[in-house]
Amino acid sequence: MGHTIYLIRHGESQWNLENRFTGWADVPLSASGVHEAKQAGALLQAAGVEFDRVFASVLKRSLQTTYLMLDEMDSLWLPIEKSWCLNERHYGALQGLNKSETAAKYGEEQVKIWRRSYDVLPPLMDAKDPTSARFDRRYQDLSDAQLPLGESLKKTVDRVLPYYAENIWPEVRRGKRVLVSAHGNSLRALVMHLFQMSEASVLELNIPTAVPMKVVLDDSGKGISRDYLGDPEWVKSKVHGVAAQGAVSPGSEKK
Amino acid sequence: MGHTIYLIRHGESQWNLENRFTGWADVPLSASGVHEAKQAGALLQAAGVEFDRVFASVLKRSLQTTYLMLDEMDSLWLPIEKSWCLNERHYGALQGLNKSETAAKYGEEQVKIWRRSYDVLPPLMDAKDPTSARFDRRYQDLSDAQLPLGESLKKTVDRVLPYYAENIWPEVRRGKRVLVSAHGNSLRALVMHLFQMSEASVLELNIPTAVPMKVVLDDSGKGISRDYLGDPEWVKSKVHGVAAQGAVSPGSEKK
Repeated sequence: MGHTIYLIRHGESQWNLENRFTGWADVPLSASGVHEAKQAGALLQAAGVEFDRVFASVLKRSLQTTYLMLDEMDSLWLPIEKSWCLNERHYGALQGLNKSETAAKYGEEQVKIWRRSYDVLPPLMDAKDPTSARFDRRYQDLSDAQLPLGESLKKTVDRVLPYYAENIWPEVRRGKRVLVSAHGNSLRALVMHLFQMSEASVLELNIPTAVPMKVVLDDSGKGISRDYLGDPEWVKSKVHGVAAQGAVSPGSEKK
Repeated sequence: MGHTIYLIRHGESQWNLENRFTGWADVPLSASGVHEAKQAGALLQAAGVEFDRVFASVLKRSLQTTYLMLDEMDSLWLPIEKSWCLNERHYGALQGLNKSETAAKYGEEQVKIWRRSYDVLPPLMDAKDPTSARFDRRYQDLSDAQLPLGESLKKTVDRVLPYYAENIWPEVRRGKRVLVSAHGNSLRALVMHLFQMSEASVLELNIPTAVPMKVVLDDSGKGISRDYLGDPEWVKSKVHGVAAQGAVSPGSEKK
């Protein structure tokens, strides 16, 4: 039969709405994001899905989504493991900039390269920037080498996968029903690994906000299938929404 | 200097409002309870209080209170340890009954005895009762001996204290700033232990809903002082509210 794991990207955040690069900036859900998160919980509840363990990032939009879903599922009592390793890709000096600010500062072409490449770093954040994670006590146990000032998708993969291998997969393998509540790029990293996707095809992968993705794995941990929960037309419109946003705005697909 | 720990009782629940015995019944916060929880978070935030670790029960009203407080304090990323050992006193067959139902079924005098005694058990819940914790998967790892069908305050003490000694006190002792988010009787149990109170005096202790209690301990773990955060007149009216409720209704003080 294999193993099942559910992945969910947080609902719309305030900066998704304002079309700003978010990354590690700790932005709350928008009103619409709150609604999406509850809807995701109701979908899982209606489908009779139950979890034993939950993994989330340490960013507010992921934790708010997790809470709203679990409250809807009557499962607030579940243990939640929170880790920075599931955080969104760190967007360096781009964090906080909106579409037109970014284009004005760096040019449209350069922005496309940052968005469409697997291993090109964004412009790094100044290490003395007061909004740097180095000054945020939730990251106080991380070494300077671990604390990013800006990440490519590749760098994101490099921290998501060891965490998955050490903390999540062992639970899934021993039969625990797991939910991973994270972000567009940390989930891309995970799906890339599970389905052995190429660097080119993972960049085409648009994960919609707050739609539960059911992934079935074989005993070795390799992905057999992945499907979104919910009405197929609704899911299609949500996936299309993410892809279309990406085409017209630099910041939209990597929040 | 000693060590500091904060205790908080959840905000008003739906059954506090309806004046029903709650115990382990998993009742959500009322609208007023939601407001109280946010207010508690804002109080702590304004006082500059920060936490490193949080302990909560596995009951929804404690977990909702915890979430709302931490969201207000911008601290959703904190690790939260959830345990049934911090649950409210199990109220046995009284759970779900309101004031007049209880008096009609058992008589006013008997109800007083259950409320005012330290070691008298309430009428036990039928082991086959479908609302029993035995059929709730959050308690699936507990043995039949561990799963209560009704508890006295003494029985509550007997599970709160070992949990505190093994899980909470070691964190406090090594300098971690801890919040315990729990219930009227599980917190009574804890305060009784910390301040070496008599059985008679702990029954006089009325802990108000959603007012942060700051407890200072010496190096051996003995309580030196305890104070509520917030305007003293407001705190007094909240404590008085709990005590007064107790005098007119059988269910109100042990939610």
